[in-house]
Amino acid sequence: MSDLHVYDTTLRDGAQQEGLNLSVTDKLAIAAHLDDLGVGFIEGGWPGANPKDTEFFRRAQTELRLKNATLAAFGATRRAGGRADSDPLVRALLDSGASVVTLVAKSHVSHVERALRTTLAENLEMIRDTVTFLRGEGRRVFLDAEHFFDGYTTDRAYALEAVRVAAESGAEVIALCDTNGGMLPAEVADVVADVLATTSARVGIHCHNDTGCAVANSMAAIDAGATHVQGTINGYGERTGNANLVTVVANLQIKQGLELLEPHRLAEATRISHAISEITNVAPYSRQPYVGSSAFAHKAGLHASAIKVDPDLYQHTDPKAVGNDMRMLVSDMAGRASIELKSRELGLDLDGSDEADAAKVAQVLARVKDLELRGYTFDAADASFELLLRRELNGGLPDYFDVESWRVITDSRGEDDALSEATVKVFAAGERVVTTGEGNGPVNALDHALREGLSSAYPEIAHLELVDYKVRILDTEHGTDAVTRVLIETSDGSTTWSTIGVAANILEASWDALLESVTFGLIRAGVAPRRG
Amino acid sequence: MSDLHVYDTTLRDGAQQEGLNLSVTDKLAIAAHLDDLGVGFIEGGWPGANPKDTEFFRRAQTELRLKNATLAAFGATRRAGGRADSDPLVRALLDSGASVVTLVAKSHVSHVERALRTTLAENLEMIRDTVTFLRGEGRRVFLDAEHFFDGYTTDRAYALEAVRVAAESGAEVIALCDTNGGMLPAEVADVVADVLATTSARVGIHCHNDTGCAVANSMAAIDAGATHVQGTINGYGERTGNANLVTVVANLQIKQGLELLEPHRLAEATRISHAISEITNVAPYSRQPYVGSSAFAHKAGLHASAIKVDPDLYQHTDPKAVGNDMRMLVSDMAGRASIELKSRELGLDLDGSDEADAAKVAQVLARVKDLELRGYTFDAADASFELLLRRELNGGLPDYFDVESWRVITDSRGEDDALSEATVKVFAAGERVVTTGEGNGPVNALDHALREGLSSAYPEIAHLELVDYKVRILDTEHGTDAVTRVLIETSDGSTTWSTIGVAANILEASWDALLESVTFGLIRAGVAPRRG
Repeated sequence: MSDLHVYDTTLRDGAQQEGLNLSVTDKLAIAAHLDDLGVGFIEGGWPGANPKDTEFFRRAQTELRLKNATLAAFGATRRAGGRADSDPLVRALLDSGASVVTLVAKSHVSHVERALRTTLAENLEMIRDTVTFLRGEGRRVFLDAEHFFDGYTTDRAYALEAVRVAAESGAEVIALCDTNGGMLPAEVADVVADVLATTSARVGIHCHNDTGCAVANSMAAIDAGATHVQGTINGYGERTGNANLVTVVANLQIKQGLELLEPHRLAEATRISHAISEITNVAPYSRQPYVGSSAFAHKAGLHASAIKVDPDLYQHTDPKAVGNDMRMLVSDMAGRASIELKSRELGLDLDGSDEADAAKVAQVLARVKDLELRGYTFDAADASFELLLRRELNGGLPDYFDVESWRVITDSRGEDDALSEATVKVFAAGERVVTTGEGNGPVNALDHALREGLSSAYPEIAHLELVDYKVRILDTEHGTDAVTRVLIETSDGSTTWSTIGVAANILEASWDALLESVTFGLIRAGVAPRRG
Repeated sequence: MSDLHVYDTTLRDGAQQEGLNLSVTDKLAIAAHLDDLGVGFIEGGWPGANPKDTEFFRRAQTELRLKNATLAAFGATRRAGGRADSDPLVRALLDSGASVVTLVAKSHVSHVERALRTTLAENLEMIRDTVTFLRGEGRRVFLDAEHFFDGYTTDRAYALEAVRVAAESGAEVIALCDTNGGMLPAEVADVVADVLATTSARVGIHCHNDTGCAVANSMAAIDAGATHVQGTINGYGERTGNANLVTVVANLQIKQGLELLEPHRLAEATRISHAISEITNVAPYSRQPYVGSSAFAHKAGLHASAIKVDPDLYQHTDPKAVGNDMRMLVSDMAGRASIELKSRELGLDLDGSDEADAAKVAQVLARVKDLELRGYTFDAADASFELLLRRELNGGLPDYFDVESWRVITDSRGEDDALSEATVKVFAAGERVVTTGEGNGPVNALDHALREGLSSAYPEIAHLELVDYKVRILDTEHGTDAVTRVLIETSDGSTTWSTIGVAANILEASWDALLESVTFGLIRAGVAPRRG
């Protein structure tokens, strides 16, 4: 294993992201996932400054059983004019029980004078006093040199002096922070090399993505000799986010041969990234390197035929290394090869080698092209494509229920919100069921009525949930006369799938997508048709 | 202005993104935005290979008036064993009317032998023949050397030979493509420098983001001497996306002082990025560098107080340079200056110089911010913004009619298409009118019923036509429970305008947008209220 520190700050700096709000329970659950991933350090928060973080450290002592990682408490150097041993915030760091304390300190003259409003000398004294005190109390001390790169540009000597004082006082790591995120790789490399020439402390790097270079900047620092890298899961963080820790680690490990995580742990990265998305309730970014759901998804027909020959011709690494998978998207750009690959993915094997297979592939292809002409798109509707394949290749879908009719009424009077009411008539398990559902929109009402109608025959659908609904009007020449495409994403609590409906009428398109969503959910749950 | 080519491939390579599906009308609209941004080249698609792209180039000849950019047609070298002058796909490139042709060619031995299934010599002949033929027909030829970096690693001599043949045959640009996206900056820089030492052609760079380094890789290539950079708006593209062109350009221009775009054009980047998101219907990525809605948003309490002292202490660049804002992006676009400007346009003059004016502007701004929090967006709804201004500054809108209620019923039985029927009750010209409209969708039915109801009081609306209807679900955490934003574009035969509605119920949002559309149409036609 490499000696490089992998330091995660999802729970502290990552939580600064707009719209991200973590409870103590969320933080404990995320910490357990980070430990499973194998990071060396987990920065848990700022005890003392934030009651939730104080509570996190308290509960972590009994509820968190870390196998790999060491917990770090984040805090600031003592107040100007005070003493570390009587500073309540410094005391809170000790009380947190964390064996590592990461102190944020100023190293930029303008920030010392204008934001902290103290003298340059006092700021150095604050570093010296706080580090010395915490070391005396038996803590390992890491220093986050805030705004270091901008500070170095403004006054190199002072920035380096802050590093020197911290190291001399016993700080084990000096993490250079590009707090405003404006750096580019070459500058980062130069500054890191210069700092390394002046200190014997371990030098670390903490980047933000404001120039789109957080990953490259982190790697440039490591290439220049830094041996501690900070980042966050899914690149969470303020503004454009922090360096995406999984991307940095995967690059170093897969592209540069440094072993930072045991390989079986790196292979958990996709699962863990998605599991943490579930906790943060931030929709996963599908284009995220390595672990995004699109990271190994291919659409171009040009590629698909060659991928059959040799997948490595068209992927930069084996997706299995990070626990991801190659996916073939079916679209009007794709052809036979995509269909064969997709069938294989679904276990409906068509090796394409004999005539019968070739005829089936041609039949599916013709069907896909016909539907695409009518406005369907299967690259965004994996479940509908699977249903299509099962319909064409497997002799039809399980016959779960029949629909007699449906109706939705929406009305609005005066200032009140419009209300929708849907009535659905279905046959399931030998019964004709008529149900009515209400909703704050027509699709919502239809969804409620349909589930109600099927609930006694198929109680399994109770836990399905619509998690996303997208509408697109195609052929915009004709306004509301146009064809409407609806995509629905459904979750069963552990996985999600997407279905599509296309019709002139937006509610008919929505209804078709709802039916496919429920059918797919029943197939996935292994439910057999109940015809009564 | 720098001599560096800014080459946009949103319409071709960007369109490979999962879930992104552009109509010809979408592509024309995006091209107009790209031209406004000031890019040098717009790659429009692959004419001949894709009927939509053939049509795009056909329509572009009459419908697109480019002020800055040159249109490029993308295509492949001729088929193995054939001749360029009789290859139908090469012919389609000529027929496209584009003065620049970008040819994709193989330079990786394994791809030649295993994907293209031809000999190394024939591949070079295909490059030579196709480039020579197109040059002979008076086209500028750019060459995309596919999988160049992987090919260079596998067989440097062959990769360089492909470059040499292309340049010798008259290719003006050789764009080195990291097609699989696995490169890191240092490797890219080394390869670019080596290629530059062997050719006098202009060398370009085309990167994908699979290692999270597309921006850094592009910049490393330029630093090494490349003078043509390819990328896409919003980093659209297959898998993890292409290099984000705006990030690359902003870094080069703001951080490195290269003037690639006129500064007033770069200041349109945020607006254009968001306008293109509306067309693609891909939710804008808020953490995108420079132009993301969170890119200059601050959450840390630590920062907030210091930002007041000096914003530059906490931002890496002035957000105005890219048309973004430290606080709320959209509010800024509807900020004081545009409110003053728009008022003047409407003859509601506010020169902003006296206190009363300043108070009115502040009042409008507060109203806009309130509505934006609820999901409205005025940069895509010019008519609704004008109505808002008239409402706030002019003491209200003309009182054309009152709505008592509306109702829509949609039903479906058996195999027939669902039908919608709307009933609208309005008061106009002193009469209470109850009308029913039918339609193949609920909004269509509402539109018919509303026009019917107003037709005797306001015959002027007979020639208004809905030409576009867009739906976006905001806050996708709650599926069909989410808030719906509807944008409607209406034409009176000579001009078009856009209105917006936002509500939990999609039909209520649509109704609100319809009402604004009709009201705006009547104001524009100079019609006075008829109250009977």
